[in-house]
This record gives sequence, C-alpha cells and structure tokens, in this order.
Amino acid sequence: MILHTLHLLGGHSRPGQLQRSIPGLSKKMMTQTLRELEDKGLVSREIHQIMPPNVDYSLTPLGKIFVEPIEQLYLWGIEHADALEALEANERLAGTTTDPLEAAE
Amino acid sequence: MILHTLHLLGGHSRPGQLQRSIPGLSKKMMTQTLRELEDKGLVSREIHQIMPPNVDYSLTPLGKIFVEPIEQLYLWGIEHADALEALEANERLAGTTTDPLEAAE
Repeated sequence: MILHTLHLLGGHSRPGQLQRSIPGLSKKMMTQTLRELEDKGLVSREIHQIMPPNVDYSLTPLGKIFVEPIEQLYLWGIEHADALEALEANERLAGTTTDPLEAAE
Repeated sequence: MILHTLHLLGGHSRPGQLQRSIPGLSKKMMTQTLRELEDKGLVSREIHQIMPPNVDYSLTPLGKIFVEPIEQLYLWGIEHADALEALEANERLAGTTTDPLEAAE
C-alpha cells in the first residue's frame, strides 16, 4: 500500500504526507514498513540538513519496478469491479468469504 | 495455482491430468480446492455418464476473467526475474525473507 501511495504521490513524499494519504496507518506501522522497504532496496530515505531537518522518502529504481504489478492489479480491479462483485455474491451464497485474488489461486 | 494450470491446459481438464500437472498436489487438496472454486463460480464440473463415468473441470467465464491478473503476475515475474533476484539479495543482506510481491505491498 505504501509503494502504491508513493507512486500516486509522484514517487516521493514526506512522511507526514504519506501518512495522511493512507487512512488508518499509524506512524509506528508506517515507519516500520518504510524501514523494511528501505532494507529491501525498494525505497530510499534522504535527510535534508536544514532547520528543522526534514526527510524525503522516494521509490528507488527497483521500487518503481515492483510498483508495476501492484498498479496492474489496482487497474484490473477497477476494470473488473463487476466480476469482483459476482465472485463476492457467489461466496456469500456458498457461505465462504475470502480475499478475491487469493481465491483465484 | 489450479486456475493457472487449468488455463495452461486450455481451460479444461480431467482431475488426473490436473493433478499430474501440479507436482506435490494431493488428491484431497485438489478436490477440496476445486469444490471451493466451484462454489465461487470460477470452475464448473461436468460428469460424463459413460462406463466408467468421468469428470471434466472447466474454467467458467468468471474463472477466465480471474485468470487474467494471475497470468499477468506470472508473465511479470518471468520478465523481471532479475528484479526479483535483486530483491532477494537485498533481503538476504538485511536478514529478512518474505514473499517478493507481499514485500511490495
């Protein structure tokens, strides 16, 4: 979700802007996830030594590659909202509820 | 995986052929998964009343829709094997190992 949002914000963002863009995301969870994404080389962190100092998070080249399938899935979901609804209706009928794409595995 | 394999087999298959196409898939897990996919309207089952009777499983129109994002992910993975390797190398360095696409969330 953070990679997708960074992508929507043009590929870079301040932490505050990022957190405001993802309703329900706690600062702790955001910071932890950003550290993990940094470790994986998907996000880079730049600290600007001004007063007060501020931080910018950006998608790395590798991060931009991994955003592609996420964006494809988001687009696919928007274009196939009717299919997703049909699947959910079938699941309700059958009395099972699972994540649509997981169900498709 | 079963939807993907059914797709590779031309959209329909006998259970035996399906099971042989997915190494390590038990008959019990295959049957259970096929029942769930049937409940969700993604797969249909046709019983041929001949001696001995046999069964054909096919992707439904809805199933064919849900195969699309799965195929896109498989293709993306093949085309970006180098990016997946780079991510895994970063994860080993950072001492974390997670599913690459899950890491991209």
